[in-house]
Order: sequence, then C-alpha cells, then structure tokens
Amino acid sequence: MYQDRIRRPALMDKVMSAQQAALLFKDGMTVGMSGFTRAGDAKAMPLALVERARHEPLRLTLITGASLGNDSDGLMAEAGLLARRLPFQADAALRRKINAGEVMFIDQHLSETAEQLRSHSLAPIDIAVIEATAITEDGFLVPTMSVGNSANFAQQARQIIIEINLSAPLALEGLHDIFIPGERPGRAPIPLVSPEQRIGTTAIAIDPARIAAIVITDSPDSPSNVLPPDSETEAIASHVIAFLESEVSAGRMTPALLPLQAGIGTIANAVLHGLIGSPFSNMTMFSEVLQDSAIELLDSGQLIQASASSITLSPTMHEKFMRDIDSYRAKIVLRPQEISNHPEIVRRLGVIALNTALECDIYGNVNSTHVGGTHMMNGIGGSGDFARNGQLSLFVSKSVAKAGGISSVVPMVAHVDHTEHDVDVLVTEWGLADLRGLAPRERAPLIIERCAHPDYRTQLRAYFEQACLRGGQTPHVLEAALSWHVRYRDGQSMLS
Amino acid sequence: MYQDRIRRPALMDKVMSAQQAALLFKDGMTVGMSGFTRAGDAKAMPLALVERARHEPLRLTLITGASLGNDSDGLMAEAGLLARRLPFQADAALRRKINAGEVMFIDQHLSETAEQLRSHSLAPIDIAVIEATAITEDGFLVPTMSVGNSANFAQQARQIIIEINLSAPLALEGLHDIFIPGERPGRAPIPLVSPEQRIGTTAIAIDPARIAAIVITDSPDSPSNVLPPDSETEAIASHVIAFLESEVSAGRMTPALLPLQAGIGTIANAVLHGLIGSPFSNMTMFSEVLQDSAIELLDSGQLIQASASSITLSPTMHEKFMRDIDSYRAKIVLRPQEISNHPEIVRRLGVIALNTALECDIYGNVNSTHVGGTHMMNGIGGSGDFARNGQLSLFVSKSVAKAGGISSVVPMVAHVDHTEHDVDVLVTEWGLADLRGLAPRERAPLIIERCAHPDYRTQLRAYFEQACLRGGQTPHVLEAALSWHVRYRDGQSMLS
Repeated sequence: MYQDRIRRPALMDKVMSAQQAALLFKDGMTVGMSGFTRAGDAKAMPLALVERARHEPLRLTLITGASLGNDSDGLMAEAGLLARRLPFQADAALRRKINAGEVMFIDQHLSETAEQLRSHSLAPIDIAVIEATAITEDGFLVPTMSVGNSANFAQQARQIIIEINLSAPLALEGLHDIFIPGERPGRAPIPLVSPEQRIGTTAIAIDPARIAAIVITDSPDSPSNVLPPDSETEAIASHVIAFLESEVSAGRMTPALLPLQAGIGTIANAVLHGLIGSPFSNMTMFSEVLQDSAIELLDSGQLIQASASSITLSPTMHEKFMRDIDSYRAKIVLRPQEISNHPEIVRRLGVIALNTALECDIYGNVNSTHVGGTHMMNGIGGSGDFARNGQLSLFVSKSVAKAGGISSVVPMVAHVDHTEHDVDVLVTEWGLADLRGLAPRERAPLIIERCAHPDYRTQLRAYFEQACLRGGQTPHVLEAALSWHVRYRDGQSMLS
Repeated sequence: MYQDRIRRPALMDKVMSAQQAALLFKDGMTVGMSGFTRAGDAKAMPLALVERARHEPLRLTLITGASLGNDSDGLMAEAGLLARRLPFQADAALRRKINAGEVMFIDQHLSETAEQLRSHSLAPIDIAVIEATAITEDGFLVPTMSVGNSANFAQQARQIIIEINLSAPLALEGLHDIFIPGERPGRAPIPLVSPEQRIGTTAIAIDPARIAAIVITDSPDSPSNVLPPDSETEAIASHVIAFLESEVSAGRMTPALLPLQAGIGTIANAVLHGLIGSPFSNMTMFSEVLQDSAIELLDSGQLIQASASSITLSPTMHEKFMRDIDSYRAKIVLRPQEISNHPEIVRRLGVIALNTALECDIYGNVNSTHVGGTHMMNGIGGSGDFARNGQLSLFVSKSVAKAGGISSVVPMVAHVDHTEHDVDVLVTEWGLADLRGLAPRERAPLIIERCAHPDYRTQLRAYFEQACLRGGQTPHVLEAALSWHVRYRDGQSMLS
C-alpha cells in the first residue's frame, strides 16, 4: 500500500496513526506546521493533538505558513493547545483567544518568519508537521497545494511528521519550486528574475533519518470562503483598471503590466476577476496566493504565468483545477513564502501590489489588522512585503462598514501597519486617490473627495481644516484624532 | 586652468559663473541636486538661485540625496524658491516653512527616490546640479564626499550643471563605486555580496552633450554637527554592546558581527564610538553615512571595511581623513544611495541596523519624524530601508527630552514610521528591551521596565493595566492614548 506515495521503502515502517504520532509532542515544544491560506495544511495532527490535550497539559508554540483550514486553529485554541501562535491566522475562535490575551500572537511579515528561524531569532522548531503528496525515492517531500514555510521547517526541525494526503493527486508533482536562501554572511543573490522561472527543486530536500512518523489522510483542503463580487467591489475593480490603463497610456508600463500581487479576500479577488476582458494581455502574477480569479484569468489567456506560495479555490474551481492540472502545472509555480514574498524579488520585478485595508487615514496611513485599533482581525500577512517593495502599492477597501456606522477613511488610523511612505494609491467604490509624489497636506483633500463615503466627507473636511490651523507637516487635532473610533464604540456610529 | 579637473577639453567652454548658469532655470522646473548628510552638496548654485529669486518668480521642486549643508536649504526656503522638496532635509528654516504648509515636503525612504524617478512615478528631472571633484576624459563625473542620487540625476536630467569643487582633492578619485540597477521588467540581481565589493565604475557615466554649465567653487562641506558623547549616550552604547556580546555568545553571529548600519546623529555616533575597545574585531559597515566614529573605528583596526553613500566629519577628522586619504580609499566605498540602502542588499547581508527614535510606544512602534505627532523634524531618511530588511533592527533614544517634560516611551506614538513588525530592540540609557518573538502584551512590560524613565513608569504601568481591561491584541484606552502629547502641549510636561 501507498508505494506510489512513499517511494522509499525503508520509510514504510514509520507509518502510524495520528494518535501514535501525537505522542511525540511534549509540553512547551515549538511546532512548525504546513498550511498557507487554508491550503496544504496538516489535517490529522491538529485533531490528534486536540484529543491529547483533553487528557494532559500540552501547550505549544505553533508556527505555520499562514492561516489553516478545517477549523484547526480554532479547535486547537479552544483545547488550550496554543500558547503562542505566529505568523498569521484567520480563525474566529483563535481570534477571540488572542484578543482575550490567552494566546500570544506574533503578527509577522510573511517573508520574515523563515529568516528569523534561520538566524535563530526565534526558538528552534522541535517538530515539523508537513502535508505531502508523496515522499520520493530520496526521501524528499512533494508538497500539496501550498509550500509556505514547509521547506524551512523541514530543514530545521529535529523531528518531522509527514501527512500523506491521498486526496492530493500525484499530478501535483512538478508544480513546486523549492529554493532556500543561504546563511548570512556569505549569501548569494537569489537568481529569480521573472515570475515563471524555476530556480530550485520540485520537492523539499530533507534528511530521511529525521522522519519520525508518516500519517495517512484523505481530507481535502477547506474551500475558499471569499464572497462573490458585488456592486461595490465591481466599482473598486473598475477604478483600479482605469488607473492601470492610465499607467499604460503614460508609458509607465506596457499592456502586459508588471507582475501582479493580490492579497487574499473578496475585494482583491473581485479586482482580479474584473481584469477579465480588460485591455491587458500577457499578464503575469507574482503573488502569495492564487484564488479563483487567478485561474479564471489564466483560462481567459490574458494571464500567462502565475507564481505564488499557495492555491485556495472554491469547490467548483478546485474540481476544474484538478481536472486540468497538467495544463495549469505549466503555468503555475508554487514557492516557499520567503521567496514568493521576498523583498529582493518584489523590488526587482517591480510588482503591482494590491491589498485590502481595514481603514486608512486622510494622510494615507493604513491599518490592515486591528479592529478599533486594538482587536486583531487576521494579521499583516504579506501585505507589507509587497506594499513596501513593489513599484506600485494599492490599498482597496469599501468606504464604510457596519451599515455605514464605520467609515474606512478616518482622521487618524488607530493602528498603523503601512505608513504613508508605503502607500501609493487608495481605492474605494467611490474612487481612487493617486498619492504618488504628494505631501500629506495634498493627500488629505484627494483622499476625502475621491475615497470617503459622501456621508463622511463634511466631517473629514472639518477635521482637516481644523487640523491645518494647528500647523505641521501632518496636521492633526490630537485630542480629536481618535474620537471617531471612540464614538463608534460608544454609539455604534462614527457619524457626529 | 583646471586641466586636471576638466579633462575633456571640449567642455572648457562650458565654464561659466553660477549667475550665468542660474539663468538656465525656469519657474516650475524639477531640479536634482547632489548632497547627502551635508556632504558633497552643490555650493554655488543654491546661492545663485536665491539671488535670482530676489528679482523674479522662481519656484522649484528640489530633489536631493538627503540633507544639504551651508544653510542652502534654509536660504532657498526663505527666498521662496522651494515649492516642493524631497526626500529629506535637516534645516531649521526649511522645517518652519514645511510645518507652516508653505513648502510641500515628501518624506521618502532614501532608497526609493531613484526608483520612483526611474519608473516615472515622479516628474522627470529638468536640471541636475552635481558637485564633482573632476570630469574625466570621457566626460564622466568623479563625485566628492557623497554619491547620493547624483548618478540617477545625471542619468535622467535633460541638462546637467557641474560644480567642480577645487577644495576636493583629486585623490578622492577611486573612492566611489557607481552602479545603477536596470529597468523593470528584466532587471538582473544586484551582484553585491559583501560590503567592500566594487560592482560599478569609479565615476558617473553621463552624456557630455547634456552638460550645460560648469561652475568652479572652492568651499568645503559643512562640518558634522553631532554632539560629543555624554553619560546617557555612553549608557546607551554600553547596553548595545552588551546585547551584541550576548548575540555572539548565543552563536547568532561571530565576533565580526554582521555589517553595521548607524543612522546620522549624536546617539548613533556615540554607540559606534563605544565599539572602540569592545571585544569585536574584523567588523564591517554597510551604512548610508560615515561619521567621525566610523573613521575612529577604522583607525582602531576593529573596523576593516566601510560602505556608505556619504562621509560627514568634524573639521579635525576631515583634516585627518584628507591627509590619509590613500589609506582610507582602500577601506571605504561610497555608493549611490539606492545601493547603500537597497532592501535587496540589506537583507542579503543581514545588516545590524541602529537608528534613532524620537519616541516609541509600549508596543514597540516608533516615531522617527514628527514632533508631537504633527511637526516634521528631518524625515524618515534611510531608517526604514535598514530597519525593515536587516537581521537586527535596534532603535535608540534618550528616555526623556525637554528637561524630563517629554517621555520617549508613550502609550501610543502620535505618528508611526516603523511598526512593531520592524522593531526588534529598543534602547535608552536605562536599558534594553529585546522584543524578538514577543506579542504586544509581552512587549509592554519589558519596554516600560527596561527603557522608560523611572519618573514615567508608574503612569505607563497604569495605562497598560487599564488598557488590558479593555482587551485586544494591542490593548489601548483609545480616548487616553494620545493624552500624554496633549498634556505636554498644554502644560509642558507629560507627567500627570
């Protein structure tokens, strides 16, 4: 059994149940698990660990690629398994524990976790749990629908547990390109110069002697949970497309644009969807995750190559992807997240970065993570890796939330993830503000008039006028700067 | 005359007075001027432009490397010459105009201005004004004590005015390494893999046909204005050195450390000065500016190579440097600022970044630029280029300012330049907080107890406790978060 999945016969005696493998874990360990935007996460071990934690104290530091599927993060959090969690999550139950101060959450740029492990700025990985399609004759791991930090975990962990997922077709082999930068000092340039280029191996090199257990699973990834486009996301998409057309007209890029990055979520997905039928052709993507829209754009022929660290699809699109896997494998490369998000490569390629803001302020600072300035939503993810280093950094948001009670454009964001230095363009359903080359006092009127919801413009204008009377490069009325957030908290509306 | 300085005879007839050259400028033009941290700035043209502006309307967009010397920025600002100014300044008179909203100041990461010019995200340069030691037979420019953005300006400007500075010794030739990244898409990796490596030419390649004027000057750079170490900066230095020793003990680096970057200013200079006699040897620097302390460290033999974009020295040290220029030229490389600060290189080398904070908050966010959250001091400079991408990012500050009325550790910074994601270590004269791998709720007690001035610790603890009752990943009492700044404004003290 499993000979096509475990091609190194000596490893067959490592096959065991998840319950047996769970006995390898000890209280206080640091664990690295595969999984990035619900793709390629370990399916069996989280549940087996939850089961173990019912009977004995077991608190772990859990590092992943990004978010897990299958409610694993929530189940582990509620079982008290998670003492520390990094670098990203997107689970309602875990979020509650984080915001209650019961789980220490370290919110990191997704390109940096591997670097911090390599430089020993983080505690070493005791056990890596990695989902794989197969183990090769050399003992190498063929990943499934994400690479994330799996190659780094496998390189560094003392022990490795492999989950062979029978639902992942063997045809995934060849989709991945595994390259790990060298140690510092003495590191060479990363030789990647175009999105489709392959610079590594198709499987993750590991020392087979460190494989402690092999667990067999057959559960699919959790499907994508993005919402379909609506009139507002369609309006945002049309503003972005008109802007990109003007960039082409101005000679700043060709109709192939520059490699596109789009953050996970409904709005970014809608913008990419909106590119179907646009005047752009021979486009490429250099992103961290591919959603339905990327596959649709590939199918349209307008997108010709896509690089990412994971693929997260709806059930229908997943089925189509697996049916045509041979064709997609020629157009898609999945890389470790430190490469998909690497500042060196993002800057070299001149990526167009498209990410979602929770809120922005009238000077162009962006909050991507903290609801009301204090409560974690998901984490910064890769947005900073791309926004800082790309040629163009766009942030998109609907202009209001909570039935108009929250304005996404505020006098001062209550938490800053991206500073004015790293935000080129802001877009809501009302319009687009091109902030390049503008001073803060020039940015404010543009953001207010182009992006804010009309119901909030008078209030924003009044704030800005009053602030300018106080003077400064970035005028503020400090005692009122966060009053909108306080007003919403106390009265469920930012309207004054 | 000047045959050794202007080695292409056909250019001799371009020699003219600064007054004549000033006639080339037209109202509304974009001008690129050499100059970085008071080094290598054009000396004659700013004054000639100020003179012209007395008689006729002349408003310019001025782009430089970084700060200028000789009060040029202030004189130009007061003459009404500056409509727009980027990417950095450090002049009291210009600062007043900026904060009054009379000069539009675009505060940029110093690595990014050249990239934005190249991608036409900024208006093109009409005239470049570049100080040079000499013009070679090929018409190439040998820079003086900085490179800054000069190579980029020269490459892109329609017309070039060269200031030949006779006070710059010809022996500076060979100090510089000029490399400009290619266009995107299609850019190759930057081949720099160690601080001392040379990857370009020793002079700036230009098309001699675009040389519109050559002006002869003989004025030295403005000397460095850093203050000597005091007991507080010495305490900061000792904390940093103890921390680096512990990094070596933990095996995270060798006694050669990793390449050091130190921001301009008194505290960073004092920390580097403190490294003399430390247990580290064979050190290298990969920084944007070299101050007196870097030369002292080279003299001590502990520092063996230094890379930067400029050299800014005290008069005494300047004299010594010029006397021993042949020896220093073998150990120092001056590069364009997009290379000295490039994310690709800073990440590859694993730089130790040491920069100054105006204030930080209890969660590790840093304000480097805005006094009271609104009024520009100098600009973000290169701090973000290094802090984001280095292996270690340290921010240093004295714990109080204004005779104790201002605490550098506050509940919430009133302006964010560096987010918690990019700040590894905070240091004041009281101690050092190592924030790596810690969640915000873990960072706060450490920052309060290690870094805050004792007079402010009780207040900070009370804020944090009250904030934690509200919950969240990053707890805050929003209505009180900026109250310390308001209290100082109204009563000249943050003490409650």
